[in-house]
Amino acid sequence: MKITTFIGSSRKESNSELLADIVTKEVEHQKIDLKDLSIQPIHDLRHADGGFQLVDDDYDVIIKALLESDTVIFSTPIYWYTMSGIMKNMIDRLSQAIRDERFPQLTEHLQTVEAIVLAVGGDDPKIKGLPLIQQFQYTFDFLNMRFSTYILGEGNRPGDILQDEQALVQADLLNKRLKERQPSA
Amino acid sequence: MKITTFIGSSRKESNSELLADIVTKEVEHQKIDLKDLSIQPIHDLRHADGGFQLVDDDYDVIIKALLESDTVIFSTPIYWYTMSGIMKNMIDRLSQAIRDERFPQLTEHLQTVEAIVLAVGGDDPKIKGLPLIQQFQYTFDFLNMRFSTYILGEGNRPGDILQDEQALVQADLLNKRLKERQPSA
Amino acid sequence: MKITTFIGSSRKESNSELLADIVTKEVEHQKIDLKDLSIQPIHDLRHADGGFQLVDDDYDVIIKALLESDTVIFSTPIYWYTMSGIMKNMIDRLSQAIRDERFPQLTEHLQTVEAIVLAVGGDDPKIKGLPLIQQFQYTFDFLNMRFSTYILGEGNRPGDILQDEQALVQADLLNKRLKERQPSA
Amino acid sequence: MKITTFIGSSRKESNSELLADIVTKEVEHQKIDLKDLSIQPIHDLRHADGGFQLVDDDYDVIIKALLESDTVIFSTPIYWYTMSGIMKNMIDRLSQAIRDERFPQLTEHLQTVEAIVLAVGGDDPKIKGLPLIQQFQYTFDFLNMRFSTYILGEGNRPGDILQDEQALVQADLLNKRLKERQPSA
Repeated sequence: MKITTFIGSSRKESNSELLADIVTKEVEHQKIDLKDLSIQPIHDLRHADGGFQLVDDDYDVIIKALLESDTVIFSTPIYWYTMSGIMKNMIDRLSQAIRDERFPQLTEHLQTVEAIVLAVGGDDPKIKGLPLIQQFQYTFDFLNMRFSTYILGEGNRPGDILQDEQALVQADLLNKRLKERQPSA
Repeated sequence: MKITTFIGSSRKESNSELLADIVTKEVEHQKIDLKDLSIQPIHDLRHADGGFQLVDDDYDVIIKALLESDTVIFSTPIYWYTMSGIMKNMIDRLSQAIRDERFPQLTEHLQTVEAIVLAVGGDDPKIKGLPLIQQFQYTFDFLNMRFSTYILGEGNRPGDILQDEQALVQADLLNKRLKERQPSA
Repeated sequence: MKITTFIGSSRKESNSELLADIVTKEVEHQKIDLKDLSIQPIHDLRHADGGFQLVDDDYDVIIKALLESDTVIFSTPIYWYTMSGIMKNMIDRLSQAIRDERFPQLTEHLQTVEAIVLAVGGDDPKIKGLPLIQQFQYTFDFLNMRFSTYILGEGNRPGDILQDEQALVQADLLNKRLKERQPSA
Repeated sequence: MKITTFIGSSRKESNSELLADIVTKEVEHQKIDLKDLSIQPIHDLRHADGGFQLVDDDYDVIIKALLESDTVIFSTPIYWYTMSGIMKNMIDRLSQAIRDERFPQLTEHLQTVEAIVLAVGGDDPKIKGLPLIQQFQYTFDFLNMRFSTYILGEGNRPGDILQDEQALVQADLLNKRLKERQPSA
C-alpha cells in the first residue's frame, strides 16, 4: 500500500498536519505540503480551441503522487467552511489533469484509489464542516474513487487539535487500520 | 444603492458572468473580474508573532469594493461542487482583511451589506450546489451579512445558462427587484 | 401524463397545498391529502421471520396512486426543517411497499416516475430546507426515480406563500411545463 | 445530571438502541421507547381560532421527561435518510408543547438542556446521514439547546452496529464523558 498525504494548510505545524501525522504515525507514506508548491489556478479551456495549455508550475508533482498511490489523504484546514484556497486550486486543476494526454492512465488509476479526508476548523467543524464532506463525496463519486472515511477535528490556535478527544480516537483507529494493511512498514 | 459583482470564472463570457449580467441588466453596478487580478492565497498568521504581513498584490481592490458597496453579488462557476479556486482565495483573504489596521471599518461595514450568490455548474447544480450555498450562509452569518437570495443555474458549455429557464426567471425577478431599489439608474 | 400530488400538511388550505395548486392549475391530476388517510408508522420487519405483516390502514391508496402516475408531486410543509411526520410515515412505509408481494411491479414502475418536491416553511426555507432536498434526492436515487425539480417557498401564516414572488415564478414556470406536456387537458 | 434517551426505532433490540445502550452503559438514565407510546401527528393550529387543542395521547410523557432532564439523547434509525416517522411525530409535536399553557417553563428549560444525537443507517450513513444532523442542528438552534455531539453508525441487520468500530470508539468516549459527569452513579 502506497499512501500520499496532501497538506492544505498555509502555516507550519498546522492542526491539519498534526492530525495527518497521527493518522500516518509509523505508517510508510509520503507527505506533500501544498504551500511549498507553486500551483496555478485552473484556466478552464475545456471548450476552447486547442483545449488546455501546458502550465509551467509544480502540478506534475501532484499527478505523479496520485499515480503512485493507492490511498490518498486530503488534510485541510477549514477556512470559511470549506477547504483552503491552495487545496481548492489543486482540486480544480484535476479537470485539466484528467484530460492531459501525457497521463492517459490517470482517470483509470483514480478509480482504484481510496480517499480519506481530514479537516480541522475552529467554528463548530463537526456541524459546519458537513457541506465540505458532501463536496468531497460528490468529487470522489465523479472520479469513481472510494471515499472510505473522514475526520472532522476542532482547532484554532496551533496545537488545539490535540485537545479534541473525539478526533483523536478516530485518528488512532484509522492509524491502526492503515498499519494493519501495511504489516512490513 | 451601490452594487459590486465579483466574477469567479476563469474563462471569458462564462455562464456565471452571463447570469450576473442578466441580474444586473440596466442596473448601475461595478463588475470585478477576479481572473484579471493578482490575489495571493492567504498565509494564516493569526497566531504568529507580528500577525499578518502586508501582501503586495491586488487585494485592496476587493476591500475597497466591499467598503463602497451595500450589495455584493458573488458569481462563481461551480468547480468540483464548490466555488472556483480564485474566488476561494478571495474569500480566504477576508480573514486577513478584517484584521487589517488600514481598514478598521471593514467588519462593521460588512454588517450592512446584502449578499447575493449566483453559481452555475454542469453536474446537477440545483442539488449538488446546495453544500456551496450552505457554506456561503455560514460565511455570511460569521460576518453578520444578510444573505438575501441565491440562484443555482445549470451550464457547462459556453452560453448554456441561457437554456436554463428556471434560473432565468429567477434572474429576471432579481433584476426587477434591484431596479426597483435604484429608480434613477 | 398522469400526475398525483401528495399533500403533507396537517391544516386545511395550507401554504404547501396552495403552492401545489398553482403548480397544477389547469392540469389534470389527482390530489391526495395525507391528513385524510390513516397511515400507520412502519414496523420494520425486514429481518424478522415472516417479514412484513399486512397492515390494515389506507396505505394501499398510496401504492395505487404511485402505480398509476408518471409524475408525483410531494408537497409538504417544513416542520422542524424537514417533511411533516405524516408525510414521513408515508415515505417510511415505502420500505414495506417495495417488498409487498401484492404489488410486484412497484419497484420497476417507480423507475419511470418523475418526482417533484414542493416545500414551504417559515424559517429561512431557501437555506434551512436544503437538507430536506438532499434527503429527497437520496431517496429518489435509491428508488431510481428522476428528481426533476423542487421549489422551496416561504410561508408561516395561512396564505403567506402568495407573497413569495420567487416561489411563485418558479411555480408558474413549472405549471407551464406540465401544461405543455398535457396538451389535451 | 439527569439523562433521558428517546429510542426511535420500530423494532426491538434495534441497532440504534444498542448504540444508545453503549453510550449510557453504567450511567444512570431513563430510556423511553417511542414505539411503546401513542403519539399523534401534530395538527397545526397555531393560527386557528382557539389555538392548539388538547390531544388525548401519551405526549405528556415526552414533555415530563424533557422537563426532568439536563441531557437528552435522540437515538434513531435512519429511515430514508432521516429520522423515523415516530420520532418525527414526536419532534413535530414540540410546536404544540412549547405553546402548552400547562407547561409554561418548557421553553426556558430546554435552553439548559444538552442534546446528543445517535443515528444508525444502512446506506452510507456517515455521508448520507449528514442532512439529518444539519436538521437536528437547526432544531436545537431554534430551541436554544446545546448540541454537544452526534454519532453516525452503520447497521442494517440486527446487531450490525457492533461491527462499526468507528461508531464504537465514539460511543465509548461519549460514555466515558457521561460517567465522569455523574461520579456517584
